[in-house]
Amino acid sequence: MVQQTTTNDTKQRLLDMLEGRKDEMIDIRRHLHQHPELSFLEEKTAQYIADFYKGKDVEVQTNVGNGFGIIVTIKGGKPGKTIGLRADFDALPIHEETDVPFRSQNEGAMHACGHDGHTAYLLVLADCLIQLKSELSGTVKIIHQHAEETPPGGAKSIVESGVLDDLDAVFGIHLFPAYATGAVGYRSGNAMAGRTYFKLHIQGKGGHGSSPQNANDPIVAGAHFITAIQTIVSRRLNPFEMGVVTVGSFDGKGSFNIIKDSIEIEGDVRYMNEKTQQVIEKEMHRIVRGVELEFDVTCDFTYTADYPPLRNDEKVTAEVVEILKAANEPLITEVSEFPVMSGSEDFAYYLEKTPGLFFNIGCRPKTDGKVYLNHHPKFDIDEDALLIAAKAVAHVVCDYGQNK
Amino acid sequence: MVQQTTTNDTKQRLLDMLEGRKDEMIDIRRHLHQHPELSFLEEKTAQYIADFYKGKDVEVQTNVGNGFGIIVTIKGGKPGKTIGLRADFDALPIHEETDVPFRSQNEGAMHACGHDGHTAYLLVLADCLIQLKSELSGTVKIIHQHAEETPPGGAKSIVESGVLDDLDAVFGIHLFPAYATGAVGYRSGNAMAGRTYFKLHIQGKGGHGSSPQNANDPIVAGAHFITAIQTIVSRRLNPFEMGVVTVGSFDGKGSFNIIKDSIEIEGDVRYMNEKTQQVIEKEMHRIVRGVELEFDVTCDFTYTADYPPLRNDEKVTAEVVEILKAANEPLITEVSEFPVMSGSEDFAYYLEKTPGLFFNIGCRPKTDGKVYLNHHPKFDIDEDALLIAAKAVAHVVCDYGQNK
Amino acid sequence: MVQQTTTNDTKQRLLDMLEGRKDEMIDIRRHLHQHPELSFLEEKTAQYIADFYKGKDVEVQTNVGNGFGIIVTIKGGKPGKTIGLRADFDALPIHEETDVPFRSQNEGAMHACGHDGHTAYLLVLADCLIQLKSELSGTVKIIHQHAEETPPGGAKSIVESGVLDDLDAVFGIHLFPAYATGAVGYRSGNAMAGRTYFKLHIQGKGGHGSSPQNANDPIVAGAHFITAIQTIVSRRLNPFEMGVVTVGSFDGKGSFNIIKDSIEIEGDVRYMNEKTQQVIEKEMHRIVRGVELEFDVTCDFTYTADYPPLRNDEKVTAEVVEILKAANEPLITEVSEFPVMSGSEDFAYYLEKTPGLFFNIGCRPKTDGKVYLNHHPKFDIDEDALLIAAKAVAHVVCDYGQNK
Amino acid sequence: MVQQTTTNDTKQRLLDMLEGRKDEMIDIRRHLHQHPELSFLEEKTAQYIADFYKGKDVEVQTNVGNGFGIIVTIKGGKPGKTIGLRADFDALPIHEETDVPFRSQNEGAMHACGHDGHTAYLLVLADCLIQLKSELSGTVKIIHQHAEETPPGGAKSIVESGVLDDLDAVFGIHLFPAYATGAVGYRSGNAMAGRTYFKLHIQGKGGHGSSPQNANDPIVAGAHFITAIQTIVSRRLNPFEMGVVTVGSFDGKGSFNIIKDSIEIEGDVRYMNEKTQQVIEKEMHRIVRGVELEFDVTCDFTYTADYPPLRNDEKVTAEVVEILKAANEPLITEVSEFPVMSGSEDFAYYLEKTPGLFFNIGCRPKTDGKVYLNHHPKFDIDEDALLIAAKAVAHVVCDYGQNK
Repeated sequence: MVQQTTTNDTKQRLLDMLEGRKDEMIDIRRHLHQHPELSFLEEKTAQYIADFYKGKDVEVQTNVGNGFGIIVTIKGGKPGKTIGLRADFDALPIHEETDVPFRSQNEGAMHACGHDGHTAYLLVLADCLIQLKSELSGTVKIIHQHAEETPPGGAKSIVESGVLDDLDAVFGIHLFPAYATGAVGYRSGNAMAGRTYFKLHIQGKGGHGSSPQNANDPIVAGAHFITAIQTIVSRRLNPFEMGVVTVGSFDGKGSFNIIKDSIEIEGDVRYMNEKTQQVIEKEMHRIVRGVELEFDVTCDFTYTADYPPLRNDEKVTAEVVEILKAANEPLITEVSEFPVMSGSEDFAYYLEKTPGLFFNIGCRPKTDGKVYLNHHPKFDIDEDALLIAAKAVAHVVCDYGQNK
Repeated sequence: MVQQTTTNDTKQRLLDMLEGRKDEMIDIRRHLHQHPELSFLEEKTAQYIADFYKGKDVEVQTNVGNGFGIIVTIKGGKPGKTIGLRADFDALPIHEETDVPFRSQNEGAMHACGHDGHTAYLLVLADCLIQLKSELSGTVKIIHQHAEETPPGGAKSIVESGVLDDLDAVFGIHLFPAYATGAVGYRSGNAMAGRTYFKLHIQGKGGHGSSPQNANDPIVAGAHFITAIQTIVSRRLNPFEMGVVTVGSFDGKGSFNIIKDSIEIEGDVRYMNEKTQQVIEKEMHRIVRGVELEFDVTCDFTYTADYPPLRNDEKVTAEVVEILKAANEPLITEVSEFPVMSGSEDFAYYLEKTPGLFFNIGCRPKTDGKVYLNHHPKFDIDEDALLIAAKAVAHVVCDYGQNK
Repeated sequence: MVQQTTTNDTKQRLLDMLEGRKDEMIDIRRHLHQHPELSFLEEKTAQYIADFYKGKDVEVQTNVGNGFGIIVTIKGGKPGKTIGLRADFDALPIHEETDVPFRSQNEGAMHACGHDGHTAYLLVLADCLIQLKSELSGTVKIIHQHAEETPPGGAKSIVESGVLDDLDAVFGIHLFPAYATGAVGYRSGNAMAGRTYFKLHIQGKGGHGSSPQNANDPIVAGAHFITAIQTIVSRRLNPFEMGVVTVGSFDGKGSFNIIKDSIEIEGDVRYMNEKTQQVIEKEMHRIVRGVELEFDVTCDFTYTADYPPLRNDEKVTAEVVEILKAANEPLITEVSEFPVMSGSEDFAYYLEKTPGLFFNIGCRPKTDGKVYLNHHPKFDIDEDALLIAAKAVAHVVCDYGQNK
Repeated sequence: MVQQTTTNDTKQRLLDMLEGRKDEMIDIRRHLHQHPELSFLEEKTAQYIADFYKGKDVEVQTNVGNGFGIIVTIKGGKPGKTIGLRADFDALPIHEETDVPFRSQNEGAMHACGHDGHTAYLLVLADCLIQLKSELSGTVKIIHQHAEETPPGGAKSIVESGVLDDLDAVFGIHLFPAYATGAVGYRSGNAMAGRTYFKLHIQGKGGHGSSPQNANDPIVAGAHFITAIQTIVSRRLNPFEMGVVTVGSFDGKGSFNIIKDSIEIEGDVRYMNEKTQQVIEKEMHRIVRGVELEFDVTCDFTYTADYPPLRNDEKVTAEVVEILKAANEPLITEVSEFPVMSGSEDFAYYLEKTPGLFFNIGCRPKTDGKVYLNHHPKFDIDEDALLIAAKAVAHVVCDYGQNK
């Protein structure tokens, strides 16, 4: 089968359609923003998305993976590659502190990471593609993904479901107010960190603070654990490799003069490659067992590597960069490499299986004031970025594969 | 003025009166047990005690010190020493787990340290002394003390109020189920530990767990603090001196992947003499300031020595032991030295100002099962010990000073 | 057999003989001081002692135990107890810094702990006892002990040889310039600490300092070991019990930018009873194994309890104190209890098998200057103390057992 | 002035001359190898080099900088750039363990880092350039540098002397047996780590191991220091930045039962940029001062940043790579990027002042056995690499600047 790419004429009509539906993207985003739902609980959001596709000439699969994932398959009229486009739709457990009229109506939940915008642009883009599908080369699979924010995430289960087994390439974007509207950022190769969650329950023996010999102090054991794990990054890792071991939680509140029975430590690990992850995992287990022996405590240790490092395929990245630069899209003012990030994304699972690119769309609000980044209670975006996202992805959909 | 002691005839009548009111002691103890009140909140208990003295020919001062303290002054008809007798009356924040019919009716409060029994025996003894007062040599000051369990305690403020400035000696007892009923335990010199409460707030800088360089991790600083303070006991104290530094609480619960802004550590220090206390205090301050520098955190450190070591006067102890042994009291089956204890008592404040003795009355329940010690939710006493306490103290009241 | 004690007449003659041989004691002490020999190498000293007894009517056993120990058995003419008297005769690896005319002629060795004086007084006393032996009740075994300063010491092997199996009591003294000449110090029960030597070889993996991941740093593992063992004293011991764990040596010198293959730690443990020793030993082993796991190093750990705590028999102590007080010896100006000491003595082995007393003889030099204590390069004694030691022990030899 | 480059005809003759003098290079290298001299003590080596230039028509400056540095200035007959070529000539304090016939005759010194080869090829190349100098464009300054191995090194002082102020570019090579003969390796931008030496003297207070309270244990303070500095790399650095803090030496050997007066720690720090170096330096000082406070010790701390990160100029690197690839030199089989290295080089000082490139010449011995890398007692090179080095640098000398 000869691979084709969509014609420039079709692409131009697609871009024009998107231009005309900019306000609709904004409306959708605002609706979603008002009704955020936490990871794995996005029932109404999924229903909203499914309703959007109701009556359209397209195949829709719901409840994909371990939650409310939705896959929409748009088969083009001409042969070509099968491309996945992913937007996540879960919100964060944050109390919104913005003053926007469409602020969260779900107390304790907030779209503070832009997933509302991801979904909004992609719904409209999908609809346009559906309308033009007879002219399209290849197939586009729209991946509306649940639960990106909370491990184990939705991506892994969607991949494992097999519905994406036929993808030739996969693409996703993230809105970043750290970059100006108009900027598109990419990074070839390893671009975002992998992540592990760990939990350590240290069971000592309670007793009175004045008689430590009759108890077995888990706080002292926990302090030594924390001190010891510093040496993993400082001594066990290749100093040119990125690695982070953070204890975020030391749950050891109690009475000042009572030695506790047990304490619980939780933490987070980051790395840019699997080898580093393996070293950290091995050393963490070592130290846990060492602490058990040193302090005669019982350790219950959970170490769960969740999101792998996100690795953008070098060839795909180069091709997308070329496409975007060649597009001469006036709204895209800059296409540049961004630095590697210590944050994590379950988009990494798609990229483990299929070559692709996860790239950034600048959306810095046009304000003189302070810019609030992703996960901040005052996070906001410049909604002009929605159309930019849609157009950038449209170019990719139409042109990807032409050089092959 | 020639010091006298009460005649043996009067003492015998006092002992007989106590014997006849054994059941009353038990009734009072059970009433108090059913109505426990936490430290500094003992309004009804204090009212109950004051009511007991209503109409009796005796001087009663209420609201003494920083709470509901009550001083009852029983002036004897003959010259003699002025002796203080103290019983504490506050309860503990413990949910009672016994099956006794008179169990706590105040959910969350429990007389789990025997203060109900202390007060019960002393009320009856006081009443008997009032009745016999014309025959008594000297003066007896009954000290019904509030708030022993919670620093700053009631004792210090009662001492500072000046109402006890004229005491020649002061006595108190504690019920201990660790010892058999019939046993009286004493210890000359330093007998119970002094105590200090400390709190350390470590202010770092919050941030994301994947970017530690942009935050400043207070959990790591706290772990180093805990590790470092171990060296106070292990390296700075005379190894023949008792000292304990316990961190009972490490309040650092948070999200696993977020570096916290701050954490709070609380702990307890024990020592048997002031010099050791001073070394520990100085070293704690050193280490706190060192941790500030090492980790660039801000430490807010409170270190409050509350109850001093309890030191029984050697001469008074020897005299009381002689009195108890000479008493040939059949209920008292053993008078023996007990080991030094790491627990603390604000009776120590009385002893700082006035020579005296704080001694133990065994009250092990006559049961085949496990014995639950003070502060346990299943704590209970053998109520026979109330009469023993009353008689033992009666002997002391009547005979103390005869050898001088 | 009826136990007897030596008559007062004989005792008086013994005391007079000692008085007359004071200068000889000093001469012997100075000779020994000039010719110090290190533990287990005291060949000439032993020969000197053996020569002293040559031609005397007494049984002499040489090369007793694991070195140059000498036992001299003086059988009295009358029945009575068998008493051991011990003096040690080894010197220390110290370069003498005194100005005395009889300073050490053995460079690098010095009698800086008074063993020269111990041996000098005991030789003269033994000779007097030999002369008076027909009048003596019971038997005196003179124990000239080698190698007190260096584990495993000489005492243990002498005890194990069986030559002292028939002792009823054993006595030894130590010269202490910390106390004034004329003072005799004693302590009933546990009086000196037990001692353990430990050595930890940590085998990591060498490498270049710039690539820690390719090496395995034993210095970091050693630092954690030292930090961890602080918790034995601070958290695992009864705070009323004495315990010390000291790392005296950290042998980790190397090139600043090379990670070492291995390091070696040596240290010392002290305790006043066997239970504490057992806790420390168990916890040390725990921590060593924990460090192995935590840091993936190989630990070779030697932990050798050498001298046990020295425990003076309560009954014997009381009797000796009574004897010394009753002696009305003008040279003995004070008989008093001294505080428990953290130092160790292999005399403890004799006391494990036989009741007895190890007591101190004050010997503070009559100088205005600084007093240098045992083991100091400027250590010296007031030689008047030799006669006092001889007389004090003479009283014990003659009168011990009279109250039984 | 119009910049020119040397003609291809001249270059070819230069290459031919080098080819013809391959054996001489090897002879020189072997001579130097037999007579290694340690850094700053290279008197005879410098004399040997100076003698080589004796009688040649060229300017030679000796004793340049803080040692035996030699600068040879070869002025071409035509205008052009001024280029520096550097070879270092000091040896290492290593006992040679090879079996080569020309092994070190200076016991304890060895050319185990290839400086003999660097000097050998450059002497012959310099001689050829002198012979061709009338045809050369520009000026070549030959930098024979002393003392590369030992801070402060020779490079810094040579740069500060001003003799190289007129350089337009500077080049140096390093022989690496890790790479096959024929391979040329380069890295643009930061390529080797900067380095700092630190020394920490901790003054505590000596005493007997059984009485820690009377001493102040510097080993415990040192252990806490080592534990604390692990947090610099693990928590204070950007995890994407390379940083290493190694303690290579812990000089704390002593008697097992004596607490030492003081200990000394020495270590090494690595980093790829100045900002990281500054963070480490600041945190090290913080921790030192914190340890002083925590443990009441006195710290004497020296922290000396010696060699900066080595940064190859991006433009120069690109040009040299182009020259080498265009050369079609049969001996050069590969020109490729090598990974960043954690090692350090004082060539970095030249590059701080002048754009240039420090690149690697593969020299893996043609043996089936194990390859011993730089600084190993069995280090050796494939001497064929000398001619390759000479030719590679010859191409650069002739062609550098032609594209500008």
